[in-house]
Amino acid sequence: MQKQIRKTCNGLDLEQMGQTVAALKSDPALAQFQFRAHNQWIYGGENRSTIRDFYGAGAEDTSRDKDFVFTNGEPPVLLGHNEGANPVEFLLHALAGCVTTTTVLHAAARGIKLRKLSTELVGDIDLQGLLALDDSVPAGYESIRINMNIEADCSEEELSELIAFAQRHSPVCNTVCRPVPVTIERVNTMRIAA
Amino acid sequence: MQKQIRKTCNGLDLEQMGQTVAALKSDPALAQFQFRAHNQWIYGGENRSTIRDFYGAGAEDTSRDKDFVFTNGEPPVLLGHNEGANPVEFLLHALAGCVTTTTVLHAAARGIKLRKLSTELVGDIDLQGLLALDDSVPAGYESIRINMNIEADCSEEELSELIAFAQRHSPVCNTVCRPVPVTIERVNTMRIAA
Repeated sequence: MQKQIRKTCNGLDLEQMGQTVAALKSDPALAQFQFRAHNQWIYGGENRSTIRDFYGAGAEDTSRDKDFVFTNGEPPVLLGHNEGANPVEFLLHALAGCVTTTTVLHAAARGIKLRKLSTELVGDIDLQGLLALDDSVPAGYESIRINMNIEADCSEEELSELIAFAQRHSPVCNTVCRPVPVTIERVNTMRIAA
Repeated sequence: MQKQIRKTCNGLDLEQMGQTVAALKSDPALAQFQFRAHNQWIYGGENRSTIRDFYGAGAEDTSRDKDFVFTNGEPPVLLGHNEGANPVEFLLHALAGCVTTTTVLHAAARGIKLRKLSTELVGDIDLQGLLALDDSVPAGYESIRINMNIEADCSEEELSELIAFAQRHSPVCNTVCRPVPVTIERVNTMRIAA
């Protein structure tokens, strides 16, 4: 059996990337994705999500043969027992990952090879908001700062432009920077409807 | 040694909660928290965060004796190998957990006992934004819907008011609903500065 040699850049299959972009250009409806999570409260500040199925590229995805499971917790200073990272920390993980993957993706699309990419994120938050102690204090992050250590085989100018482009096109970064509507509806049974 | 009996509600220590609120009221600077994450790109759509230290309540936290480690990945349809949930899915996990914990916290503050609380989240996203195929399409979630199954020992009216209050005071929900500034700065070494 002959092993197929695929051309990759930054670990991404360039042929598949090209096919995906061509498919979405010819039928933009394929770009509609729906992601999902189920979460169960355990006790106190502990709760657990299971993530597996999603809809995208015109079909329900069937590539995952088991659930991803993640536990939120709180540190003792926030009344918990470090059962897991806390939700605002998971948000930083999501943001770090999304900015990174978006940078890797658009670098590959431009033929820029990355040698390394790491980030550290700091998010400042005033818990008077969460605790409803001061109505003028927002409950969420005041701001989030990303320090990025990146090396690539391109000019400084190209790299700066790539990072700015990735920041504007990162789904999680955009969700944080832009007001995104969240609705809560009470239901008696758990069943995700498309 | 006599075991101390602590009064709890929904798994939260009411005495500690009262002390925390009293401390923050007398010195609001104690409510300033800074959360952090370090992330390392692995290859393709895979990257990994470590989360441990944070600043809050006037001091660096020292309660955690090991890192939390989380891996972002992508499914095959998004050029990955399901190395982990993807960043926009982790965002849903963060949002689910935060709305849940905020509900549990403010229920306890009101003396409302929760019998159960679970949520399912769906987030719709058009990947033409990420892929820069259409500048009019935002890169992030168009909207996120939370279905909540909750039972508590209070009236329907009190429960509805509690949920609406928790939605407004959840840090992750507020970060998603409100435009929060994110900045990226290139650095040559990784070192989080307060």
